[in-house]
Amino acid sequence: MNHGGDIYTYKKNRGHWPIDFSANINPLGLPRRVKEALAENLDMFTHYPDVSARDLTQSVAAYEGISEEEVIFGNGAAEIIYRLVQVIKPGKALLVGPTFSEYEKAVRTFGGQCEYVKVDDEFGIGESFIDRISDHQLVVLCNPNNPTGLTVTSEYVRRLAVKCREQGAFLLIDECFMDFVVDKARYSFLPHIHDFENLLVLKAFTKFFAMAGLRLGYGITSNTELLFELKGIGQPWNISVPAQIAGVAALEDQKYIDETPYAIQKERQFMVQALTDMGWKVINGQANYIFFSTGMREKEANDEFMAYCLEKGFLIRDCSNYHYLSYGFYRIAVGSEKDNQSLLGCFKDYLNN
Amino acid sequence: MNHGGDIYTYKKNRGHWPIDFSANINPLGLPRRVKEALAENLDMFTHYPDVSARDLTQSVAAYEGISEEEVIFGNGAAEIIYRLVQVIKPGKALLVGPTFSEYEKAVRTFGGQCEYVKVDDEFGIGESFIDRISDHQLVVLCNPNNPTGLTVTSEYVRRLAVKCREQGAFLLIDECFMDFVVDKARYSFLPHIHDFENLLVLKAFTKFFAMAGLRLGYGITSNTELLFELKGIGQPWNISVPAQIAGVAALEDQKYIDETPYAIQKERQFMVQALTDMGWKVINGQANYIFFSTGMREKEANDEFMAYCLEKGFLIRDCSNYHYLSYGFYRIAVGSEKDNQSLLGCFKDYLNN
Repeated sequence: MNHGGDIYTYKKNRGHWPIDFSANINPLGLPRRVKEALAENLDMFTHYPDVSARDLTQSVAAYEGISEEEVIFGNGAAEIIYRLVQVIKPGKALLVGPTFSEYEKAVRTFGGQCEYVKVDDEFGIGESFIDRISDHQLVVLCNPNNPTGLTVTSEYVRRLAVKCREQGAFLLIDECFMDFVVDKARYSFLPHIHDFENLLVLKAFTKFFAMAGLRLGYGITSNTELLFELKGIGQPWNISVPAQIAGVAALEDQKYIDETPYAIQKERQFMVQALTDMGWKVINGQANYIFFSTGMREKEANDEFMAYCLEKGFLIRDCSNYHYLSYGFYRIAVGSEKDNQSLLGCFKDYLNN
Repeated sequence: MNHGGDIYTYKKNRGHWPIDFSANINPLGLPRRVKEALAENLDMFTHYPDVSARDLTQSVAAYEGISEEEVIFGNGAAEIIYRLVQVIKPGKALLVGPTFSEYEKAVRTFGGQCEYVKVDDEFGIGESFIDRISDHQLVVLCNPNNPTGLTVTSEYVRRLAVKCREQGAFLLIDECFMDFVVDKARYSFLPHIHDFENLLVLKAFTKFFAMAGLRLGYGITSNTELLFELKGIGQPWNISVPAQIAGVAALEDQKYIDETPYAIQKERQFMVQALTDMGWKVINGQANYIFFSTGMREKEANDEFMAYCLEKGFLIRDCSNYHYLSYGFYRIAVGSEKDNQSLLGCFKDYLNN
């Protein structure tokens, strides 16, 4: 399995659902307004989607403070990654390692290769990444990064974007987890997109609004020619009616939007402390997930730990297939208080076994 | 507008919904079982979709009488068209004209060109199509064809497939409207797919189950290597949770499946007769739509007719942007008895004006 979130294999094998810490979904669940809007509009599912996604475009533009001409929607953020790579067709892309694996998969799909710059000893992204940009056509930054949850500031991103521009590279900034960051004004590059034409900021409803199954992501760029191209290279009906309805409804739930980062921060801090107290090395990120190392570097110990968690009903993300990582690295979502306590109980039992 | 189904522009301009005859949706509407299943499972929308679509695969395999290894799902059938073209990358494709326009769009997106073979005087697809296949890497057959609704027999398709194999061409057979055909055993090539490795049959839940907004199509081929490639070239989460749930539920509604072709046939025959009685030339197709010509070949007359229908609250499909067609050709969906009567009333009023 290359990604988290595969609750279906677990269900098939064991007959009941796991508690899923392997996908990074807001534990507050689907906003109530979204459920209501979907239930009220089932008959609309009969019609083809609005290919211009007018209502959704209006809502997102208002929410992000951008103009309606600067956004494109995808069947999840993942579709936008693939469409962008299809347009740019980078022969060589530069990425940070570790990071989300679909970027590389997309680059390889369209015949390109990826180079990786290793994060520093504390898993942060530093100057070496900017320095390495040369003859790359695409540079990808995931901010906060996945799986570490670590951020870089918008000031850093600006220097990255300038270097990309100098070298003729396009910059993809994946901010799919940015809305979970309490102090996001320091980190998000969205307010600065008008200074550059060579970048696109990627966002998603998937994680923040707990609607991964509905598939809705979006890209924002001031490069309207690029947007036109991105829209033209695939089918026009890629955003389903439920996704469009859910997106509009989600952005109406201001309370949910305002409370989420603080609710997540509180639980994250608690979990970081608890995992640290177990003697594990924990990365203090800012997203709705936590990256940690148990120090068990052997495959056997890794597999035993994963099997133990599975046996107790928990899915966590084994990070050994990320670049520059190995056995003993894991990522867990920040869940609800109750689920988090259960997971900690599982970890403690494991250590006491 | 390149396609039918744009009810949103109408709504935006006029403040209420039109009666839509421009998209070919089953007038029976979303099966009740689908609505129930969606309403009952809203909480599942929080989770990532099953990337293997296990339940859906099982249901479709049973429904189509194929093995589970022979099917791939798409975010609508349209996504499969694009993925297939992306894998095959045909420099030159052969199509019938007129036909559905997304094939050409996909071929051009990936750098190829399309050649068209004109249908015969009665808009049928004949031997000239088979004869023209030479150095094409892709041949596309839409059966029943869109916008005519005319079919070719499975015996014809076999000869087409043999010629494609001889010439090294891949054959895409779009059977998205086949389930509306009363005597589909005579026309569908699905029972014969195991005789060929160079073809894929495309189908969709979109039209037959009136769930265009949910986006769910599938492709069937005995070429499992090709399926593996098709699955690998995009994101793994392309089929949303609502689409997977709806697909499974739809196939449980045997009554809906059995009754649809006969209900459509009855209404279609009535409409064909009524349009013929108006003095229009009507093509007697077998799908859930009707292609006809009023004989008004001037742009002004065409636009006036379209505007009149719009004014009365009806969207119909102006076919003047199809290959080899011109002004005065239209396609209407077979709607409910009540809506069909209203549309006929509109047409009669127009003629009497």
